[in-house]
Amino acid sequence: MNRIEKHACFGGQQEVWAHTSSVLGCEMRVGVYLPPQAQAGQCPVLYWLSGLTCNEQNFITKAGAQRFAAEHGLILVAPDTSPRGSNVADDAQSYDLGQGAGFYVNATQAPWSSHYRMHDYVVHELPALVESHFPASAMRAISGHSMGGHGALICALRNPGRYRSVSAFSPIVAPSQVPWGERALTAYLGPDKSTWQAWDACALVQSVSERLPLLIDQGEADEFLPVQLKPHLLQQACDAVGHPLQLRMRPGYDHSYYFISSFIDEHIAHHANALRSEP
Amino acid sequence: MNRIEKHACFGGQQEVWAHTSSVLGCEMRVGVYLPPQAQAGQCPVLYWLSGLTCNEQNFITKAGAQRFAAEHGLILVAPDTSPRGSNVADDAQSYDLGQGAGFYVNATQAPWSSHYRMHDYVVHELPALVESHFPASAMRAISGHSMGGHGALICALRNPGRYRSVSAFSPIVAPSQVPWGERALTAYLGPDKSTWQAWDACALVQSVSERLPLLIDQGEADEFLPVQLKPHLLQQACDAVGHPLQLRMRPGYDHSYYFISSFIDEHIAHHANALRSEP
Repeated sequence: MNRIEKHACFGGQQEVWAHTSSVLGCEMRVGVYLPPQAQAGQCPVLYWLSGLTCNEQNFITKAGAQRFAAEHGLILVAPDTSPRGSNVADDAQSYDLGQGAGFYVNATQAPWSSHYRMHDYVVHELPALVESHFPASAMRAISGHSMGGHGALICALRNPGRYRSVSAFSPIVAPSQVPWGERALTAYLGPDKSTWQAWDACALVQSVSERLPLLIDQGEADEFLPVQLKPHLLQQACDAVGHPLQLRMRPGYDHSYYFISSFIDEHIAHHANALRSEP
Repeated sequence: MNRIEKHACFGGQQEVWAHTSSVLGCEMRVGVYLPPQAQAGQCPVLYWLSGLTCNEQNFITKAGAQRFAAEHGLILVAPDTSPRGSNVADDAQSYDLGQGAGFYVNATQAPWSSHYRMHDYVVHELPALVESHFPASAMRAISGHSMGGHGALICALRNPGRYRSVSAFSPIVAPSQVPWGERALTAYLGPDKSTWQAWDACALVQSVSERLPLLIDQGEADEFLPVQLKPHLLQQACDAVGHPLQLRMRPGYDHSYYFISSFIDEHIAHHANALRSEP
């Protein structure tokens, strides 16, 4: 791993690292915030997954999360949103497919399947790297925004026991039923919709064995709410099987980092509480 | 004035406005944060001046200031750093002269003198606009970063009674004595250094009538500290005349917004305290 940025921040360090990912077959960048507590021992880790068009910079520069990570003693790990590089397939005309739009799935269709394995990268390769290179414990939580909120939900729901807590801002909860998801899943997984169910939070809650509570904040003035996000579909799916969901609709808030920064303190406190409690 | 962005943020609104500046002779953009208290009545205003290469976006997206402005009931006003547009003189090869580098002076030299009057814009035209278009009182404070820290110091020192408080992060305190300042002041004011003294905080403290306390935070790992910033020169100038200065050196911190975000709460509390107290 190669450190390419290092900044003192709230008594800890905001760093950016580059590393070669064997799962993705390319160089990846990842933001790592080490709170002051990491100087004295191991800390639990909150993984943050960003949304369409983002890279490792958006969350670390705009969310204001470090203040609360320092308060609670959490490491923050914010990876890029897709494999990257000139050898990696892309759709240069689209912001919602290809580089910057990995959707946190393992692609099965050419040309995507050779690099687009963001689920395995986020769930397995990256934590192994983090837990070996930093004073990071194997106590993990996961959160994200929009496409990354979808990513957080499916990573937690697909991997019972791996995360102590999960939350999301403005997530895509039903990719099988909305334009962003339909486009991406058709490309990455093929047209057979039955293969999509394993990557759709609304479908996954119906069969998951672990009843990990879901915490979601959603702005009511979010321009993507009615067509792409549709959190009521997840509410219905959770209600049908008794899966615990706290869905907080926030009047006036949009899809931007101004929304995330307004409530990131509550999400970090939620995760810190889960990570502190006995398993 | 034309509103081009509006985002709910910490119970208030982060907005960006465009307007035609008669002082600068061009269209300008300015970030305006209205805290929740502005819905009920007038609030005091903290003006923020950004540094080289910045525009109205940097502070509003990266500093995390809105949380504390909402807590204390302050309006935040963050203008661009220079006049802008294809009709405005520029030095396209340089980040430290021309557009993005107005240095908060009133230029006297061609080609700069026709647009580069950032002092008068920040001190007079912008507050008049803010106080007529928003629920803003005439209670003003001023702060900034780097070139904008210099701007905050000289705006306050040149205009006794106009600001209730002033602070700066990593300011250029002696532009007459450092490369960034020498280059800009030569271009904007001409080679006669005697004309520079009215725009140099170290010179101004020697003659100012009002002993407005100066609050400065400076990172010790700031890459620009030894050559461009030199806060000890302001310490010496203040000591010589008994001007109150609180200069806080912060071990490990650099010149970035990670530094600003780490201490912005203390600066906003400082200004809120001054703005609340009796004159």
